[in-house]
Amino acid sequence: MNIYESDTTISQYLEFHYGDEYFGVPNYPSACVDNCLKFFNDHTSRRALDLGCSVGRATFEFAKHFAHVDGVDFSAQFIQHAITLQEEGCIRFTVKTEGDLVEHKEITLAALGYDSLKTRLHFTQGDACDLKPEYKDYNLIFCGNLIDRLYDPALFLKTIHQRLSPNGFLVLTSPYTWLEEFTEKDKWLGGRLQNGKNQTTLEGLKMCLTPRFTLQEVKDLPFVIRETQRKFQHCVAEMSVWQGTQ
Amino acid sequence: MNIYESDTTISQYLEFHYGDEYFGVPNYPSACVDNCLKFFNDHTSRRALDLGCSVGRATFEFAKHFAHVDGVDFSAQFIQHAITLQEEGCIRFTVKTEGDLVEHKEITLAALGYDSLKTRLHFTQGDACDLKPEYKDYNLIFCGNLIDRLYDPALFLKTIHQRLSPNGFLVLTSPYTWLEEFTEKDKWLGGRLQNGKNQTTLEGLKMCLTPRFTLQEVKDLPFVIRETQRKFQHCVAEMSVWQGTQ
Repeated sequence: MNIYESDTTISQYLEFHYGDEYFGVPNYPSACVDNCLKFFNDHTSRRALDLGCSVGRATFEFAKHFAHVDGVDFSAQFIQHAITLQEEGCIRFTVKTEGDLVEHKEITLAALGYDSLKTRLHFTQGDACDLKPEYKDYNLIFCGNLIDRLYDPALFLKTIHQRLSPNGFLVLTSPYTWLEEFTEKDKWLGGRLQNGKNQTTLEGLKMCLTPRFTLQEVKDLPFVIRETQRKFQHCVAEMSVWQGTQ
Repeated sequence: MNIYESDTTISQYLEFHYGDEYFGVPNYPSACVDNCLKFFNDHTSRRALDLGCSVGRATFEFAKHFAHVDGVDFSAQFIQHAITLQEEGCIRFTVKTEGDLVEHKEITLAALGYDSLKTRLHFTQGDACDLKPEYKDYNLIFCGNLIDRLYDPALFLKTIHQRLSPNGFLVLTSPYTWLEEFTEKDKWLGGRLQNGKNQTTLEGLKMCLTPRFTLQEVKDLPFVIRETQRKFQHCVAEMSVWQGTQ
């Protein structure tokens, strides 16, 4: 296999999930998983769903602790790269340095310490707002940078409890970058006027998830996406941890 | 005056130049000026040109040390905001927090300590690649984040010495984000193949500026542009300091 993936978005996300750290910010998918794990012990760590898994780093990290992990993403291209890594054990890609110039990168399951995990996880393309019935009975559903990319986030939040096992956890992280390109404005959970007053996304999440969930924790988690060797997106996501009340 | 500027790009640049610092990164226009000043003493600090001055922060900072400073930008909108600050002493604007929600900001010459400087500087709209004859005899020409936004950067570099006084300085800073939207690819100074080998922008600068200039210093300078309260562009510009050889 000597093909280097050079699609800009795919390469940025491969580097984001599996590549170098910048500005001293720790790997984000791994940091998200670490923050989820404190709510679990071996007895409860059975099934996890990584919804909006992109190229799959958190899915692999969850598989260290959960007997079965499903990774689902709306993008067939992202999922295909996660599957390639799982099946072939290696992905090569290029990241931009300056203009059209690139550097070459390689990631391997062996170097990541994931070789023994690959039978525990299953990647599939799917729509978070219209999941197939078999996606259910999870102890944890993790949605990393998903909620502001859904076409109907309230519909998602008001039905996702059907997929959780009793007292299971729903963990949401997002920089709340609402864009009409992804979500019509009247479906934004926050960042707009509602009933004459400013509503934040966290307030919108509470309105959708109460009383089926109780909010266990809110914290900030930074992440960095490299665009070139001198240009980066540097964001601070908000993580909210919700436990099902039934 | 009770009007808040809410154009996204203008507001981002007003915040970038005059607003808060993020991730511990110092104010970029001020840091650029500080790095230029070590090459000057009172005797030589007569005339400076801030080319691509945007909303004008570095122009004001240079005016603390130079008897006359011209601030020139291609964008009439940017220049108009610099002039408004100079003439009215105050600009109000909004910055995005989340979605459509904003916070209100105000900058004043008084709070910036610039009140006494405003007679030393002159803002005008202009094209760096086609400057009017009166822009000349500068001891310093500073081009902050300009070179990768010109339609013909080589033409600019090969003629700019005509505007400098003997042994004057040309200072360039840029993250070298070459985009065909601004510069046709065959005019990129670097970030592409040239004569069968990868050429960096610094190499391209050397080719254009030698032997009329000698390179005095190259260093990295970070900057941060806020898009929302949780999303930022975090870049690392390269500053190169060139002294005219005649």
